Amino acid sequence: MICFHNDYSEGCHERILLRLQETNLEQTPGYGEDAYCASAAKKIRELCGNENLAVHFLVGGTQANLTVIDAALRPHQGVICAVSGHIHVHETGAVEATGHKVLAVPSSDGKITADQVVHEVLLQRNSGAAEHMVQPKMVYISHPTELGTLYSLAELETLSAACKAYGLYLFLDGARLGYGLTAEGADVTLPDLARLCDVFYIGGTKMGALFGEAVVISNPAIDEDFRYLIKRHGGLMAKGRLLGLQFDSLLTDDLYFELGRHANTMAEQIRQTLRDLEIPLLVDTVSNQIFPILPDVVLAEVGESFTFTEQERCDSNHRAVRFCTSWATKQENVELLCSKLREIYEKFIETEK
Amino acid sequence: MICFHNDYSEGCHERILLRLQETNLEQTPGYGEDAYCASAAKKIRELCGNENLAVHFLVGGTQANLTVIDAALRPHQGVICAVSGHIHVHETGAVEATGHKVLAVPSSDGKITADQVVHEVLLQRNSGAAEHMVQPKMVYISHPTELGTLYSLAELETLSAACKAYGLYLFLDGARLGYGLTAEGADVTLPDLARLCDVFYIGGTKMGALFGEAVVISNPAIDEDFRYLIKRHGGLMAKGRLLGLQFDSLLTDDLYFELGRHANTMAEQIRQTLRDLEIPLLVDTVSNQIFPILPDVVLAEVGESFTFTEQERCDSNHRAVRFCTSWATKQENVELLCSKLREIYEKFIETEK
Amino acid sequence: MICFHNDYSEGCHERILLRLQETNLEQTPGYGEDAYCASAAKKIRELCGNENLAVHFLVGGTQANLTVIDAALRPHQGVICAVSGHIHVHETGAVEATGHKVLAVPSSDGKITADQVVHEVLLQRNSGAAEHMVQPKMVYISHPTELGTLYSLAELETLSAACKAYGLYLFLDGARLGYGLTAEGADVTLPDLARLCDVFYIGGTKMGALFGEAVVISNPAIDEDFRYLIKRHGGLMAKGRLLGLQFDSLLTDDLYFELGRHANTMAEQIRQTLRDLEIPLLVDTVSNQIFPILPDVVLAEVGESFTFTEQERCDSNHRAVRFCTSWATKQENVELLCSKLREIYEKFIETEK
Amino acid sequence: MICFHNDYSEGCHERILLRLQETNLEQTPGYGEDAYCASAAKKIRELCGNENLAVHFLVGGTQANLTVIDAALRPHQGVICAVSGHIHVHETGAVEATGHKVLAVPSSDGKITADQVVHEVLLQRNSGAAEHMVQPKMVYISHPTELGTLYSLAELETLSAACKAYGLYLFLDGARLGYGLTAEGADVTLPDLARLCDVFYIGGTKMGALFGEAVVISNPAIDEDFRYLIKRHGGLMAKGRLLGLQFDSLLTDDLYFELGRHANTMAEQIRQTLRDLEIPLLVDTVSNQIFPILPDVVLAEVGESFTFTEQERCDSNHRAVRFCTSWATKQENVELLCSKLREIYEKFIETEK
Repeated sequence: MICFHNDYSEGCHERILLRLQETNLEQTPGYGEDAYCASAAKKIRELCGNENLAVHFLVGGTQANLTVIDAALRPHQGVICAVSGHIHVHETGAVEATGHKVLAVPSSDGKITADQVVHEVLLQRNSGAAEHMVQPKMVYISHPTELGTLYSLAELETLSAACKAYGLYLFLDGARLGYGLTAEGADVTLPDLARLCDVFYIGGTKMGALFGEAVVISNPAIDEDFRYLIKRHGGLMAKGRLLGLQFDSLLTDDLYFELGRHANTMAEQIRQTLRDLEIPLLVDTVSNQIFPILPDVVLAEVGESFTFTEQERCDSNHRAVRFCTSWATKQENVELLCSKLREIYEKFIETEK
Repeated sequence: MICFHNDYSEGCHERILLRLQETNLEQTPGYGEDAYCASAAKKIRELCGNENLAVHFLVGGTQANLTVIDAALRPHQGVICAVSGHIHVHETGAVEATGHKVLAVPSSDGKITADQVVHEVLLQRNSGAAEHMVQPKMVYISHPTELGTLYSLAELETLSAACKAYGLYLFLDGARLGYGLTAEGADVTLPDLARLCDVFYIGGTKMGALFGEAVVISNPAIDEDFRYLIKRHGGLMAKGRLLGLQFDSLLTDDLYFELGRHANTMAEQIRQTLRDLEIPLLVDTVSNQIFPILPDVVLAEVGESFTFTEQERCDSNHRAVRFCTSWATKQENVELLCSKLREIYEKFIETEK
Repeated sequence: MICFHNDYSEGCHERILLRLQETNLEQTPGYGEDAYCASAAKKIRELCGNENLAVHFLVGGTQANLTVIDAALRPHQGVICAVSGHIHVHETGAVEATGHKVLAVPSSDGKITADQVVHEVLLQRNSGAAEHMVQPKMVYISHPTELGTLYSLAELETLSAACKAYGLYLFLDGARLGYGLTAEGADVTLPDLARLCDVFYIGGTKMGALFGEAVVISNPAIDEDFRYLIKRHGGLMAKGRLLGLQFDSLLTDDLYFELGRHANTMAEQIRQTLRDLEIPLLVDTVSNQIFPILPDVVLAEVGESFTFTEQERCDSNHRAVRFCTSWATKQENVELLCSKLREIYEKFIETEK
Repeated sequence: MICFHNDYSEGCHERILLRLQETNLEQTPGYGEDAYCASAAKKIRELCGNENLAVHFLVGGTQANLTVIDAALRPHQGVICAVSGHIHVHETGAVEATGHKVLAVPSSDGKITADQVVHEVLLQRNSGAAEHMVQPKMVYISHPTELGTLYSLAELETLSAACKAYGLYLFLDGARLGYGLTAEGADVTLPDLARLCDVFYIGGTKMGALFGEAVVISNPAIDEDFRYLIKRHGGLMAKGRLLGLQFDSLLTDDLYFELGRHANTMAEQIRQTLRDLEIPLLVDTVSNQIFPILPDVVLAEVGESFTFTEQERCDSNHRAVRFCTSWATKQENVELLCSKLREIYEKFIETEK
């Protein structure tokens, strides 16, 4: 079986492993206070063009999400997110475990708009019973979203302005950030994120690291005592250098972006095949996730050689599924997938006639 | 100004005040372990036709909701409720403060169906990532709902059966239960609730008590150490007898139901006037809440003499509002409201022609 | 049986009941936004000599404690209190339920000192692993304490200065405040509390109200969005006027202080009897709680006619117990207790010879 | 500088790195459902002599502690531990963040006794106000303790029996378990732990892994839905195989125990030097932590070449400090430390004469 079901099936990029080996017996201070973390943080500040950013390295995405939200909000405050948002659907209530409500708003493409945010805020403020409602204080978005879509710079500017106007924090989950930043036509950069978000993170786990997310905080209110919050949630790694070293490697010589581009190129080949075959997509994407809608019988046959994930049932004999490329996806496997898809789908069309 | 904006504007029924006075200087044990609580609990068990029910008296509805849910669920479990549910919208995240997610499902009339519950449960169980999602373990409904609607006995039977089939608890918020049980055509009784719900409460605050809700638990799993949970959430009243005595009074000589019928009769008079005037309703109700859709200019004029609450804007010059009767509503005030409504609305119609 | 086991066995002072009756059918806004709450808050501000104090009325002590602490602290911060503190021992983990650690420090008389606070703060700050420890941010004291002792003004000044010097909030639990303020030799006043504490409360439940505590906040940082916090914890009473009206009554014509003095006078009579009999005390007090150490056989006989509470076992045949007077204690019952104590104890001494 | 200040200064044992490399590009299922986790779990079950144990791999100790405790306790329940316990002192309130109180009991050597547990349980049950107190439901111990001491098998049997008798869970934190199991004279084995504890963990982070703790659960009540709890707290690693592979390596060919014995041997050499010099110890230990009490001037000079941690000040010119060996400690460095200690201390003694 060849895996296209996620972007974390393999270990890590070889340069990381190499450095782990080279530095293995060095003695370093614990808990992220080592030179590797310092070096990686410095590189992030440089890439973001901002000397004053705080950088913290966490083990995984759910941990990053819950720690940031717990650090930012007072008890009665909640976080607005798309109904498909990872924190709303796929984190077993990790945000609620910190006592905060996720205020879900409708979305068909995984994104939310400034208008939705303003509407949600005014709904509470003008309700006549504001104190009986959770106070919206943060907006959580992901980029790319759960559906592989991207915010344009213009959209992000508008969203950020709305947040500032109403006193909300903007938090961007970048678990797949590298795929988003390097996607065809994407116009959002790291300095944009540092400028427009109060906090965001640069994903490592899905981008060629063994694990790790680099949380970047531009708003000092969120950074206050942040390390206490990490520890309180069990996220302060004894051997914190493992995180620093991985990000230091990924951010050296453009590797992080190279890995992003690779996955996007691989995805584009699959997308091209789907286009050629006139297979509809649940949602149009430019990054490493592709959501074709296919007949059950076709999926059954594809599923004999390739893994993918279920997205949703569309009608009684069609499902949308997700194919996912990654930093580690091999050209030969993409070709195998494309030719198999072509073969199976054309056979199917023939039969249907 | 005459109040129709809620059912808790006045103090309490005079019989309660009288007994408070008669018993004021008695010395009783604290924390609900007095004879008044015992007597009220006994009456509830009798009215429910079940000797084995556990009964606890709490000060208010939000407190009852959060305590019951915290007692019933393990950390990773959530509670399904209508998108309009009180715990989802109007309790400032009190349920999330206990670490639990509210799993909101669509509803246009404030009710949810057995099918929706089953769908939500299967969505999680069959997701292929069950452990990444909050596990639905309880269904929260209110009766009457936030929109004044009622479950039929048949609907409640089906919902209860679905909950049992999938191992979920059924929890009924009865903040306005008396108005629901005595509404025209209502076929649900206290013994039905005791049989079909794992836990429910008999509201006092909106039903003629100064304050208080009587939580009735038929499922021993939820009752285990329940008093610890009350205390932990600051809800164990030192002078618990105040709660026992109030419910004991309300449940003597059919008073609770009499008060319910009174409010419903008052509401029916208002509804009849609206019908006569052919004023549309946001939702059709039989209990003490009425939701007419009226022109802004009419509402402005009605609002000079009567209070009511905003429900939602319907179009650029119509709003749905709520008129609420209660155990304390005076016949003369209803007549004043009806005649005023008639006068203002007929004048408006005349003008529109 | 005559009760000396607590100060909340009876209902409330008759003036409160009277006003409940007089105002019962008035229609008022809900949730504490009525004229009675406003009037009571005004009186509190006047008594404290500070126009800027925020005042909120809560139903009970545990609720007041957990709400104040949850409002004041960020997630990683804790509250220092005496090892005998109510929040540490007798609230079923209500503070921990809000996610905060209680940092208990030793105390033999229920009080803590400025030195202890400074020590605890420096222990954390200088630990070399500050982020691995809960950050002390608040000091919780009660006045009178759980052992009936009182802070002198000098002690409170020193404690307050230490808190300010180290950036901690000072929170004073005044569940029995009236007994403390009016005790023989007590030199702390309401204006002192308003000046020295960031937040404190004036207890009603144990001071002649049916229920209720008036939380007084002088530090705006704690007051921000405080009503959201009350609601979130189920403490925002629908008929909030009940709280306002009770405090308004207690704070009219010096009633609150009169009730305090009464209980202290009653207690002093019991103390005098104990002194005459040379019965040792666990701790020396001047307010309404008395902790004599008595032989088990004496306690057994006293216990046939009077209730009291167990404090601790002292040796194999002596226990310290608590006798508690209150606003409602009758002179005749105190006399009965004193004469019975005298009779039983003298008989015991005779037997022992 | 040569590090003796902790046992997590280096990376990991070379066999782990080698296997990471060998398996790096394999595609495996995520979230711990891979063959490496299965294999490691199987080895743990075999080493414990119990086929029915549940095994889960977590990233770190604080995470393991909070997840286990949150999984095991109902909201009103607490966990008894030594006043020096890691969860009480060094986890920034991670247990309280899950809503649970840590019930600290006195201890001078880091251990607690069955008698203390029984006393704490009876104190609550017989208080006459049980519902006002946190209910003890779990006992947390560490082995070795924070002070490097070990439980004897007899002590553990007694503690376990007391827990069973009173319905409490026994939870053993084995962050340094390998050092404990292989210490001179230690008589506790893995099968003992599996038999006597409801849950314990086999530490990896401090025992030659990059990171990771293997939680072993013998009581099915704690294991129910445990993976949901891991996810909810941000602890379910996407590339879970990293944990499985590390434990699989450590538990192959006795490596884990070999590493334990190595550290203990290194520690014994230091201890022997201290004995020779007649330097007193804060507490007598047999595992990899050593707590000598030394003059400040000696420590200042030792500190020029070696790192160690502060434990406590003993008098105005002596401190107890901790020297820690590990799986990675080099013989040559121990010799350097011993000769330096000897040289400095003998010079000091000379001066003092």
